[in-house]
Amino acid sequence: MAERAIGVFDSGIGGLTVFRELRRWLPGEELVYLGDTARVPYGTKSAPTVCRYAIEAANFLLQQQVKLIVVACNTASAVALDLLAGQFDVPIVGVIEPGSRRALEVSRHGRIGVIGTEGTIRSQAYERVIRAGRADVSVTVAACPLFVPLAEEGWADHPIAAMAAREYLGPLLEQKIDTLVLGCTHYPLLKETLQKTIGDGVTLIDSAEETAKTVAALLKQKNLRRGKPSQAAPRYFVTDIPDRFRKVGGTFLGDSLEEVSTVSID
Amino acid sequence: MAERAIGVFDSGIGGLTVFRELRRWLPGEELVYLGDTARVPYGTKSAPTVCRYAIEAANFLLQQQVKLIVVACNTASAVALDLLAGQFDVPIVGVIEPGSRRALEVSRHGRIGVIGTEGTIRSQAYERVIRAGRADVSVTVAACPLFVPLAEEGWADHPIAAMAAREYLGPLLEQKIDTLVLGCTHYPLLKETLQKTIGDGVTLIDSAEETAKTVAALLKQKNLRRGKPSQAAPRYFVTDIPDRFRKVGGTFLGDSLEEVSTVSID
Repeated sequence: MAERAIGVFDSGIGGLTVFRELRRWLPGEELVYLGDTARVPYGTKSAPTVCRYAIEAANFLLQQQVKLIVVACNTASAVALDLLAGQFDVPIVGVIEPGSRRALEVSRHGRIGVIGTEGTIRSQAYERVIRAGRADVSVTVAACPLFVPLAEEGWADHPIAAMAAREYLGPLLEQKIDTLVLGCTHYPLLKETLQKTIGDGVTLIDSAEETAKTVAALLKQKNLRRGKPSQAAPRYFVTDIPDRFRKVGGTFLGDSLEEVSTVSID
Repeated sequence: MAERAIGVFDSGIGGLTVFRELRRWLPGEELVYLGDTARVPYGTKSAPTVCRYAIEAANFLLQQQVKLIVVACNTASAVALDLLAGQFDVPIVGVIEPGSRRALEVSRHGRIGVIGTEGTIRSQAYERVIRAGRADVSVTVAACPLFVPLAEEGWADHPIAAMAAREYLGPLLEQKIDTLVLGCTHYPLLKETLQKTIGDGVTLIDSAEETAKTVAALLKQKNLRRGKPSQAAPRYFVTDIPDRFRKVGGTFLGDSLEEVSTVSID
Protein backbone atom coordinates (compact mmCIF):
# COMPACT_ATOMS: atom_id res chain seq x y z
CA MET A 1 0.00 0.00 0.00
CA ALA A 2 2.79 2.45 0.95
CA GLU A 3 4.33 2.04 -2.51
CA ARG A 4 1.22 3.45 -4.15
CA ALA A 5 0.92 6.97 -5.48
CA ILE A 6 -0.71 10.00 -3.90
CA GLY A 7 -3.69 11.18 -5.95
CA VAL A 8 -4.55 14.85 -6.30
CA PHE A 9 -7.52 16.40 -8.04
CA ASP A 10 -8.76 19.87 -8.79
CA SER A 11 -11.28 21.43 -11.13
CA GLY A 12 -8.41 22.62 -13.32
CA ILE A 13 -4.90 23.93 -12.97
CA GLY A 14 -5.11 25.69 -9.58
CA GLY A 15 -4.42 22.47 -7.70
CA LEU A 16 -0.96 22.43 -9.25
CA THR A 17 0.12 24.88 -6.52
CA VAL A 18 -0.74 22.12 -4.03
CA PHE A 19 0.94 19.53 -6.22
CA ARG A 20 4.06 21.68 -6.25
CA GLU A 21 4.16 21.78 -2.46
CA LEU A 22 3.58 18.01 -2.29
CA ARG A 23 6.60 17.49 -4.50
CA ARG A 24 8.60 19.78 -2.24
CA TRP A 25 7.50 18.25 1.06
CA LEU A 26 7.30 14.63 -0.08
CA PRO A 27 10.15 13.99 -2.49
CA GLY A 28 10.33 10.32 -3.46
CA GLU A 29 6.55 9.86 -3.35
CA GLU A 30 4.79 8.99 -6.58
CA LEU A 31 2.17 11.56 -7.60
CA VAL A 32 -0.87 11.55 -9.89
CA TYR A 33 -2.79 14.71 -10.78
CA LEU A 34 -6.27 15.01 -12.26
CA GLY A 35 -7.57 18.37 -13.51
CA ASP A 36 -11.26 18.33 -14.47
CA THR A 37 -10.63 20.93 -17.16
CA ALA A 38 -13.74 20.05 -19.19
CA ARG A 39 -15.90 21.29 -16.31
CA VAL A 40 -13.72 23.96 -14.72
CA PRO A 41 -14.48 26.06 -12.67
CA TYR A 42 -16.30 24.48 -9.73
CA GLY A 43 -16.38 27.80 -7.85
CA THR A 44 -19.56 29.09 -9.46
CA LYS A 45 -21.42 25.76 -9.42
CA SER A 46 -23.86 24.33 -6.92
CA ALA A 47 -23.03 21.88 -4.14
CA PRO A 48 -24.85 18.87 -5.67
CA THR A 49 -23.11 19.41 -9.01
CA VAL A 50 -19.68 19.78 -7.40
CA CYS A 51 -20.31 16.65 -5.28
CA ARG A 52 -21.07 14.64 -8.40
CA TYR A 53 -17.89 15.86 -10.10
CA ALA A 54 -15.79 15.17 -6.98
CA ILE A 55 -16.99 11.57 -6.75
CA GLU A 56 -16.18 10.99 -10.40
CA ALA A 57 -12.71 12.47 -9.89
CA ALA A 58 -12.04 10.36 -6.78
CA ASN A 59 -13.21 7.23 -8.60
CA PHE A 60 -10.79 7.92 -11.39
CA LEU A 61 -7.88 8.37 -8.98
CA LEU A 62 -8.74 5.12 -7.20
CA GLN A 63 -8.57 3.35 -10.54
CA GLN A 64 -4.99 4.67 -10.63
CA GLN A 65 -4.36 2.77 -7.38
CA VAL A 66 -3.68 5.71 -5.10
CA LYS A 67 -3.14 5.39 -1.33
CA LEU A 68 -4.48 8.83 -0.41
CA ILE A 69 -6.50 11.51 -2.17
CA VAL A 70 -5.86 15.23 -1.88
CA VAL A 71 -8.85 17.36 -2.82
CA ALA A 72 -6.74 20.27 -4.08
CA CYS A 73 -9.76 22.44 -4.78
CA ASN A 74 -11.33 24.68 -2.19
CA THR A 75 -14.83 24.45 -3.60
CA ALA A 76 -14.77 20.64 -3.66
CA SER A 77 -13.16 20.54 -0.20
CA ALA A 78 -15.86 22.87 1.07
CA VAL A 79 -18.83 20.90 -0.16
CA ALA A 80 -17.73 17.32 -0.89
CA LEU A 81 -15.07 16.31 1.65
CA ASP A 82 -17.34 14.53 4.14
CA LEU A 83 -19.17 12.80 1.34
CA LEU A 84 -15.90 11.51 -0.13
CA ALA A 85 -14.56 10.45 3.27
CA GLY A 86 -17.75 8.47 3.88
CA GLN A 87 -17.72 6.84 0.48
CA PHE A 88 -14.07 5.82 0.00
CA ASP A 89 -11.59 3.81 2.07
CA VAL A 90 -8.38 5.77 1.47
CA PRO A 91 -7.62 8.88 3.54
CA ILE A 92 -9.04 12.06 1.99
CA VAL A 93 -7.32 15.38 2.67
CA GLY A 94 -8.88 18.73 1.73
CA VAL A 95 -7.30 22.16 1.51
CA ILE A 96 -9.52 23.97 3.99
CA GLU A 97 -8.63 22.44 7.33
CA PRO A 98 -4.82 22.74 7.06
CA GLY A 99 -4.93 26.47 6.29
CA SER A 100 -7.60 27.13 8.91
CA ARG A 101 -5.64 25.30 11.61
CA ARG A 102 -2.51 27.23 10.75
CA ALA A 103 -4.43 30.51 10.86
CA LEU A 104 -5.60 29.71 14.39
CA GLU A 105 -2.01 28.91 15.41
CA VAL A 106 -0.52 32.17 14.16
CA SER A 107 -3.32 34.68 14.69
CA ARG A 108 -2.37 36.96 17.57
CA HIS A 109 -5.66 38.76 18.05
CA GLY A 110 -8.09 36.19 16.62
CA ARG A 111 -9.01 38.38 13.66
CA ILE A 112 -8.83 36.14 10.61
CA GLY A 113 -9.62 37.01 7.00
CA VAL A 114 -10.38 34.43 4.31
CA ILE A 115 -10.51 35.02 0.56
CA GLY A 116 -11.67 32.58 -2.12
CA THR A 117 -14.01 31.97 -5.04
CA GLU A 118 -17.71 32.71 -4.79
CA GLY A 119 -18.47 29.01 -4.23
CA THR A 120 -15.98 28.60 -1.41
CA ILE A 121 -17.07 31.80 0.34
CA ARG A 122 -20.77 31.00 -0.09
CA SER A 123 -20.21 27.57 1.46
CA GLN A 124 -18.99 29.21 4.73
CA ALA A 125 -16.66 26.23 5.11
CA TYR A 126 -13.73 28.29 6.45
CA GLU A 127 -15.88 30.03 9.06
CA ARG A 128 -17.19 26.63 10.19
CA VAL A 129 -13.76 25.00 10.49
CA ILE A 130 -12.08 28.03 12.08
CA ARG A 131 -14.89 28.61 14.61
CA ALA A 132 -14.97 24.89 15.46
CA GLY A 133 -11.29 25.25 16.40
CA ARG A 134 -11.84 28.35 18.49
CA ALA A 135 -15.16 30.04 19.02
CA ASP A 136 -13.95 33.50 20.02
CA VAL A 137 -12.29 34.45 16.72
CA SER A 138 -13.71 36.89 14.23
CA VAL A 139 -13.73 35.65 10.64
CA THR A 140 -14.17 38.10 7.75
CA VAL A 141 -14.50 36.73 4.25
CA ALA A 142 -14.42 38.06 0.69
CA ALA A 143 -15.01 36.46 -2.69
CA CYS A 144 -12.45 37.66 -5.24
CA PRO A 145 -13.62 36.46 -8.69
CA LEU A 146 -10.98 38.44 -10.58
CA PHE A 147 -7.99 36.78 -8.94
CA VAL A 148 -8.30 33.51 -10.87
CA PRO A 149 -8.21 35.08 -14.35
CA LEU A 150 -5.47 37.47 -13.19
CA ALA A 151 -3.33 34.52 -12.09
CA GLU A 152 -4.04 32.58 -15.29
CA GLU A 153 -3.36 35.64 -17.42
CA GLY A 154 0.11 35.95 -15.87
CA TRP A 155 -0.86 39.37 -14.50
CA ALA A 156 -0.07 38.61 -10.86
CA ASP A 157 2.30 41.60 -10.68
CA HIS A 158 0.32 43.90 -12.99
CA PRO A 159 -1.12 47.15 -11.56
CA ILE A 160 -4.57 45.68 -12.26
CA ALA A 161 -3.89 42.92 -9.72
CA ALA A 162 -2.84 45.51 -7.14
CA MET A 163 -5.97 47.55 -7.83
CA ALA A 164 -8.23 44.49 -7.57
CA ALA A 165 -6.46 43.46 -4.35
CA ARG A 166 -7.11 46.88 -2.80
CA GLU A 167 -10.74 46.68 -3.86
CA TYR A 168 -11.32 43.18 -2.47
CA LEU A 169 -9.16 43.41 0.67
CA GLY A 170 -10.17 46.89 1.76
CA PRO A 171 -13.18 45.70 3.80
CA LEU A 172 -11.04 42.98 5.45
CA LEU A 173 -8.38 45.49 6.46
CA GLU A 174 -11.10 47.72 7.90
CA GLN A 175 -11.97 44.76 10.11
CA LYS A 176 -8.32 44.83 11.26
CA ILE A 177 -7.55 41.23 10.34
CA ASP A 178 -4.15 40.00 11.56
CA THR A 179 -4.11 36.83 9.42
CA LEU A 180 -5.25 36.22 5.85
CA VAL A 181 -5.95 32.71 4.53
CA LEU A 182 -5.60 32.17 0.78
CA GLY A 183 -8.71 30.06 0.31
CA CYS A 184 -8.18 29.34 -3.39
CA THR A 185 -5.41 27.32 -4.98
CA HIS A 186 -4.80 30.02 -7.59
CA TYR A 187 -3.98 32.67 -5.05
CA PRO A 188 -0.42 31.63 -4.11
CA LEU A 189 0.58 33.14 -7.46
CA LEU A 190 -0.62 36.52 -6.21
CA LYS A 191 1.18 36.21 -2.86
CA GLU A 192 3.55 39.14 -3.34
CA THR A 193 0.86 41.54 -4.52
CA LEU A 194 -1.43 40.46 -1.69
CA GLN A 195 1.29 40.82 0.95
CA LYS A 196 2.05 44.33 -0.31
CA THR A 197 -1.64 45.21 -0.11
CA ILE A 198 -2.20 43.92 3.42
CA GLY A 199 1.18 45.05 4.77
CA ASP A 200 3.69 43.16 6.90
CA GLY A 201 1.47 43.29 9.97
CA VAL A 202 -0.87 40.67 8.50
CA THR A 203 0.28 37.06 8.18
CA LEU A 204 -0.50 35.34 4.89
CA ILE A 205 -1.42 31.64 5.08
CA ASP A 206 -0.70 29.58 1.98
CA SER A 207 -3.16 26.66 2.10
CA ALA A 208 -1.20 24.75 -0.52
CA GLU A 209 1.86 24.53 1.71
CA GLU A 210 -0.16 23.70 4.82
CA THR A 211 -1.98 20.94 2.95
CA ALA A 212 1.29 19.33 1.85
CA LYS A 213 2.55 19.39 5.44
CA THR A 214 -0.69 17.77 6.61
CA VAL A 215 -0.37 15.01 4.00
CA ALA A 216 3.23 14.35 5.05
CA ALA A 217 2.21 14.04 8.71
CA LEU A 218 -0.75 11.82 7.90
CA LEU A 219 1.27 9.41 5.77
CA LYS A 220 3.83 9.10 8.52
CA GLN A 221 1.18 8.53 11.16
CA LYS A 222 -0.56 5.86 9.08
CA ASN A 223 2.74 4.23 8.13
CA LEU A 224 2.08 4.95 4.47
CA ARG A 225 5.34 6.69 3.57
CA ARG A 226 7.12 4.98 0.68
CA GLY A 227 10.20 2.98 1.52
CA LYS A 228 12.34 3.30 -1.60
CA PRO A 229 12.06 6.72 -3.32
CA SER A 230 10.10 6.48 -6.57
CA GLN A 231 11.85 7.34 -9.80
CA ALA A 232 8.54 7.65 -11.68
CA ALA A 233 7.72 11.04 -13.18
CA PRO A 234 4.50 12.64 -11.92
CA ARG A 235 1.50 11.77 -14.08
CA TYR A 236 -1.01 14.39 -15.18
CA PHE A 237 -4.55 13.73 -16.41
CA VAL A 238 -7.08 16.26 -17.68
CA THR A 239 -10.66 15.87 -18.91
CA ASP A 240 -10.24 18.24 -21.86
CA ILE A 241 -7.44 18.59 -24.42
CA PRO A 242 -4.24 19.40 -22.56
CA ASP A 243 -2.96 22.41 -24.56
CA ARG A 244 -4.11 25.13 -22.22
CA PHE A 245 -3.32 23.07 -19.11
CA ARG A 246 0.23 22.58 -20.35
CA LYS A 247 0.65 26.23 -21.28
CA VAL A 248 -0.77 27.89 -18.17
CA GLY A 249 -0.01 25.07 -15.72
CA GLY A 250 3.75 25.50 -15.86
CA THR A 251 3.49 28.79 -13.96
CA PHE A 252 1.43 27.12 -11.24
CA LEU A 253 3.70 24.11 -10.95
CA GLY A 254 6.93 26.05 -11.26
CA ASP A 255 8.12 23.35 -13.65
CA SER A 256 7.29 22.09 -17.13
CA LEU A 257 4.41 19.70 -17.60
CA GLU A 258 5.40 16.71 -19.62
CA GLU A 259 3.22 13.62 -19.74
CA VAL A 260 -0.36 15.01 -19.80
CA SER A 261 -3.15 12.64 -20.91
CA THR A 262 -6.79 13.34 -21.62
CA VAL A 263 -9.33 11.07 -19.92
CA SER A 264 -13.10 10.90 -19.62
CA ILE A 265 -14.42 10.61 -16.08
CA ASP A 266 -18.15 11.29 -16.40
CA MET B 1 -44.72 26.11 -37.02
CA ALA B 2 -44.72 29.94 -36.93
CA GLU B 3 -46.50 29.86 -33.56
CA ARG B 4 -43.57 28.04 -31.97
CA ALA B 5 -40.98 29.69 -29.76
CA ILE B 6 -37.47 30.86 -30.63
CA GLY B 7 -34.86 28.87 -28.69
CA VAL B 8 -31.65 30.46 -27.45
CA PHE B 9 -28.75 28.80 -25.72
CA ASP B 10 -25.47 29.88 -24.19
CA SER B 11 -22.93 28.41 -21.81
CA GLY B 12 -24.28 30.65 -19.07
CA ILE B 13 -25.66 34.13 -18.63
CA GLY B 14 -23.81 36.00 -21.41
CA GLY B 15 -26.39 34.98 -24.01
CA LEU B 16 -28.94 37.04 -22.14
CA THR B 17 -27.57 40.12 -23.93
CA VAL B 18 -28.67 38.43 -27.17
CA PHE B 19 -31.96 37.41 -25.60
CA ARG B 20 -32.51 41.02 -24.60
CA GLU B 21 -32.04 42.20 -28.19
CA LEU B 22 -34.35 39.45 -29.47
CA ARG B 23 -37.06 40.72 -27.13
CA ARG B 24 -36.47 44.23 -28.43
CA TRP B 25 -36.41 43.36 -32.14
CA LEU B 26 -39.04 40.64 -32.06
CA PRO B 27 -41.75 41.65 -29.61
CA GLY B 28 -44.64 39.21 -29.66
CA GLU B 29 -42.42 36.20 -30.34
CA GLU B 30 -42.27 33.48 -27.70
CA LEU B 31 -38.76 32.91 -26.32
CA VAL B 32 -36.98 30.08 -24.49
CA TYR B 33 -33.51 30.43 -23.01
CA LEU B 34 -31.12 27.69 -21.92
CA GLY B 35 -27.95 28.52 -19.95
CA ASP B 36 -25.63 25.55 -19.48
CA THR B 37 -24.51 26.92 -16.13
CA ALA B 38 -23.29 23.56 -14.80
CA ARG B 39 -20.57 23.54 -17.45
CA VAL B 40 -19.91 27.24 -18.00
CA PRO B 41 -17.60 28.57 -19.45
CA TYR B 42 -17.15 27.06 -22.90
CA GLY B 43 -14.44 29.60 -23.79
CA THR B 44 -11.56 27.65 -22.28
CA LYS B 45 -12.73 24.23 -23.46
CA SER B 46 -11.79 22.22 -26.54
CA ALA B 47 -13.80 22.04 -29.75
CA PRO B 48 -14.94 18.39 -29.33
CA THR B 49 -16.13 19.10 -25.79
CA VAL B 50 -17.98 22.26 -26.83
CA CYS B 51 -19.58 20.42 -29.78
CA ARG B 52 -20.91 17.75 -27.45
CA TYR B 53 -22.37 20.38 -25.11
CA ALA B 54 -23.91 22.30 -28.04
CA ILE B 55 -25.67 19.22 -29.40
CA GLU B 56 -27.10 18.47 -25.96
CA ALA B 57 -28.31 22.06 -25.64
CA ALA B 58 -29.92 22.06 -29.10
CA ASN B 59 -31.62 18.74 -28.38
CA PHE B 60 -33.10 20.17 -25.23
CA LEU B 61 -34.44 23.23 -27.06
CA LEU B 62 -35.99 21.04 -29.76
CA GLN B 63 -37.82 19.14 -27.04
CA GLN B 64 -39.29 22.56 -26.17
CA GLN B 65 -40.71 22.71 -29.72
CA VAL B 66 -38.73 25.68 -31.01
CA LYS B 67 -38.86 26.87 -34.62
CA LEU B 68 -35.34 28.32 -34.72
CA ILE B 69 -32.24 28.06 -32.54
CA VAL B 70 -29.93 30.94 -31.71
CA VAL B 71 -26.49 29.87 -30.58
CA ALA B 72 -25.96 32.88 -28.34
CA CYS B 73 -22.44 31.86 -27.43
CA ASN B 74 -19.42 32.84 -29.48
CA THR B 75 -17.40 29.77 -28.61
CA ALA B 76 -20.20 27.40 -29.58
CA SER B 77 -20.94 29.45 -32.72
CA ALA B 78 -17.26 29.29 -33.63
CA VAL B 79 -16.83 25.55 -33.33
CA ALA B 80 -20.27 23.90 -33.49
CA LEU B 81 -22.47 25.89 -35.88
CA ASP B 82 -21.91 23.80 -39.01
CA LEU B 83 -22.30 20.60 -37.03
CA LEU B 84 -25.63 21.79 -35.59
CA ALA B 85 -26.87 23.02 -38.97
CA GLY B 86 -26.09 19.62 -40.47
CA GLN B 87 -27.73 17.69 -37.69
CA PHE B 88 -30.98 19.56 -37.09
CA ASP B 89 -33.86 20.66 -39.33
CA VAL B 90 -34.68 24.06 -37.83
CA PRO B 91 -32.67 27.14 -38.85
CA ILE B 92 -29.61 27.68 -36.66
CA VAL B 93 -28.26 31.21 -36.19
CA GLY B 94 -24.90 31.94 -34.58
CA VAL B 95 -23.51 35.19 -33.23
CA ILE B 96 -20.38 35.38 -35.35
CA GLU B 97 -21.68 35.98 -38.85
CA PRO B 98 -24.06 38.86 -38.06
CA GLY B 99 -21.39 40.94 -36.32
CA SER B 100 -18.78 40.12 -38.95
CA ARG B 101 -21.08 41.12 -41.80
CA ARG B 102 -21.92 44.39 -40.08
CA ALA B 103 -18.23 45.12 -39.51
CA LEU B 104 -17.59 44.70 -43.24
CA GLU B 105 -20.45 47.08 -44.00
CA VAL B 106 -19.27 49.89 -41.75
CA SER B 107 -15.48 49.58 -41.89
CA ARG B 108 -14.12 52.49 -43.88
CA HIS B 109 -10.53 51.37 -44.25
CA GLY B 110 -10.92 47.61 -43.88
CA ARG B 111 -9.07 47.49 -40.56
CA ILE B 112 -11.20 45.38 -38.24
CA GLY B 113 -10.48 44.36 -34.66
CA VAL B 114 -12.17 41.45 -32.89
CA ILE B 115 -12.13 40.73 -29.16
CA GLY B 116 -13.44 37.59 -27.43
CA THR B 117 -12.67 34.72 -25.08
CA GLU B 118 -9.61 32.56 -25.54
CA GLY B 119 -11.70 29.82 -27.17
CA THR B 120 -13.32 32.14 -29.69
CA ILE B 121 -10.06 33.84 -30.61
CA ARG B 122 -8.18 30.53 -30.86
CA SER B 123 -10.87 29.20 -33.21
CA GLN B 124 -10.09 32.02 -35.73
CA ALA B 125 -13.78 31.94 -36.65
CA TYR B 126 -14.10 35.71 -37.02
CA GLU B 127 -11.07 35.97 -39.29
CA ARG B 128 -12.50 33.19 -41.45
CA VAL B 129 -15.95 34.73 -41.79
CA ILE B 130 -14.69 38.30 -42.27
CA ARG B 131 -12.07 37.31 -44.85
CA ALA B 132 -14.60 35.15 -46.69
CA GLY B 133 -16.71 38.29 -47.07
CA ARG B 134 -13.82 40.44 -48.27
CA ALA B 135 -10.28 39.23 -48.69
CA ASP B 136 -8.47 42.57 -48.55
CA VAL B 137 -9.32 43.47 -44.95
CA SER B 138 -6.90 43.30 -42.07
CA VAL B 139 -8.25 41.52 -38.99
CA THR B 140 -6.52 41.96 -35.63
CA VAL B 141 -7.73 39.89 -32.69
CA ALA B 142 -7.26 39.83 -28.94
CA ALA B 143 -8.45 37.47 -26.21
CA CYS B 144 -9.63 39.40 -23.14
CA PRO B 145 -10.13 36.85 -20.32
CA LEU B 146 -10.70 39.50 -17.67
CA PHE B 147 -13.74 41.07 -19.33
CA VAL B 148 -16.14 38.26 -18.40
CA PRO B 149 -15.48 38.36 -14.65
CA LEU B 150 -15.45 42.18 -14.78
CA ALA B 151 -18.92 42.17 -16.37
CA GLU B 152 -20.24 39.56 -13.93
CA GLU B 153 -18.73 41.40 -10.97
CA GLY B 154 -20.67 44.52 -11.97
CA TRP B 155 -17.35 46.35 -12.45
CA ALA B 156 -18.01 47.44 -16.04
CA ASP B 157 -17.43 51.10 -15.10
CA HIS B 158 -14.70 50.48 -12.51
CA PRO B 159 -11.19 51.89 -13.15
CA ILE B 160 -10.00 48.25 -13.30
CA ALA B 161 -12.14 47.70 -16.39
CA ALA B 162 -10.66 50.81 -18.02
CA MET B 163 -7.15 49.64 -17.19
CA ALA B 164 -7.81 46.14 -18.54
CA ALA B 165 -9.35 47.65 -21.68
CA ARG B 166 -6.26 49.76 -22.30
CA GLU B 167 -4.06 46.71 -21.79
CA TYR B 168 -6.04 44.46 -24.14
CA LEU B 169 -6.94 47.01 -26.81
CA GLY B 170 -3.58 48.79 -26.99
CA PRO B 171 -2.17 46.42 -29.64
CA LEU B 172 -5.38 46.69 -31.71
CA LEU B 173 -5.24 50.48 -31.66
CA GLU B 174 -1.59 50.31 -32.74
CA GLN B 175 -2.88 48.42 -35.78
CA LYS B 176 -5.17 51.41 -36.41
CA ILE B 177 -8.42 49.45 -36.44
CA ASP B 178 -11.45 51.49 -37.53
CA THR B 179 -14.05 48.93 -36.36
CA LEU B 180 -14.16 46.73 -33.26
CA VAL B 181 -16.39 43.65 -33.04
CA LEU B 182 -17.49 42.55 -29.57
CA GLY B 183 -16.97 38.82 -30.06
CA CYS B 184 -18.32 37.75 -26.67
CA THR B 185 -21.86 38.05 -25.40
CA HIS B 186 -20.62 39.48 -22.08
CA TYR B 187 -18.94 42.45 -23.69
CA PRO B 188 -21.99 44.64 -24.45
CA LEU B 189 -21.99 45.39 -20.71
CA LEU B 190 -18.57 46.99 -21.13
CA LYS B 191 -19.60 49.02 -24.17
CA GLU B 192 -19.14 52.47 -22.64
CA THR B 193 -15.73 51.70 -21.18
CA LEU B 194 -14.61 50.14 -24.45
CA GLN B 195 -15.86 53.07 -26.54
CA LYS B 196 -13.99 55.48 -24.27
CA THR B 197 -10.83 53.41 -24.67
CA ILE B 198 -10.95 53.16 -28.45
CA GLY B 199 -12.24 56.69 -29.04
CA ASP B 200 -15.05 57.91 -31.27
CA GLY B 201 -13.09 57.21 -34.44
CA VAL B 202 -13.56 53.45 -34.03
CA THR B 203 -17.00 51.92 -34.60
CA LEU B 204 -18.13 49.38 -32.02
CA ILE B 205 -20.16 46.43 -33.32
CA ASP B 206 -22.52 44.80 -30.84
CA SER B 207 -22.97 41.21 -32.07
CA ALA B 208 -26.01 40.71 -29.85
CA GLU B 209 -27.95 43.40 -31.68
CA GLU B 210 -26.80 42.26 -35.12
CA THR B 211 -27.80 38.68 -34.30
CA ALA B 212 -31.33 39.75 -33.31
CA LYS B 213 -31.69 41.67 -36.58
CA THR B 214 -30.53 38.61 -38.52
CA VAL B 215 -33.07 36.40 -36.75
CA ALA B 216 -35.86 38.90 -37.51
CA ALA B 217 -34.93 38.95 -41.20
CA LEU B 218 -34.64 35.17 -41.40
CA LEU B 219 -38.03 34.54 -39.77
CA LYS B 220 -39.64 36.97 -42.17
CA GLN B 221 -37.94 35.40 -45.18
CA LYS B 222 -38.96 31.88 -44.14
CA ASN B 223 -42.47 32.99 -43.29
CA LEU B 224 -41.97 31.98 -39.68
CA ARG B 225 -43.02 35.20 -37.95
CA ARG B 226 -45.81 34.64 -35.46
CA GLY B 227 -49.28 35.82 -36.43
CA LYS B 228 -50.87 36.75 -33.14
CA PRO B 229 -48.42 38.23 -30.59
CA SER B 230 -47.68 35.78 -27.78
CA GLN B 231 -48.65 36.71 -24.24
CA ALA B 232 -46.42 34.00 -22.75
CA ALA B 233 -43.58 35.13 -20.50
CA PRO B 234 -40.10 34.11 -21.64
CA ARG B 235 -38.98 30.80 -20.17
CA TYR B 236 -35.49 30.33 -18.69
CA PHE B 237 -33.74 27.01 -18.11
CA VAL B 238 -30.34 26.42 -16.51
CA THR B 239 -28.36 23.24 -15.84
CA ASP B 240 -27.28 24.23 -12.33
CA ILE B 241 -29.24 25.79 -9.46
CA PRO B 242 -30.60 29.14 -10.64
CA ASP B 243 -29.52 31.42 -7.74
CA ARG B 244 -26.47 32.95 -9.39
CA PHE B 245 -28.13 33.06 -12.81
CA ARG B 246 -31.03 34.99 -11.35
CA LYS B 247 -28.78 37.34 -9.40
CA VAL B 248 -26.24 38.20 -12.09
CA GLY B 249 -28.48 37.64 -15.12
CA GLY B 250 -30.75 40.59 -14.44
CA THR B 251 -27.94 43.01 -15.37
CA PHE B 252 -27.42 41.21 -18.66
CA LEU B 253 -31.10 41.04 -19.50
CA GLY B 254 -31.92 44.52 -18.29
CA ASP B 255 -34.97 43.04 -16.62
CA SER B 256 -35.77 40.71 -13.74
CA LEU B 257 -35.61 36.96 -14.28
CA GLU B 258 -38.71 35.26 -13.08
CA GLU B 259 -39.49 31.71 -14.08
CA VAL B 260 -36.07 29.95 -14.03
CA SER B 261 -36.04 26.12 -13.95
CA THR B 262 -33.16 23.71 -13.50
CA VAL B 263 -32.88 20.89 -16.04
CA SER B 264 -30.42 18.14 -16.82
CA ILE B 265 -29.29 17.95 -20.45
CA ASP B 266 -26.32 15.56 -20.38
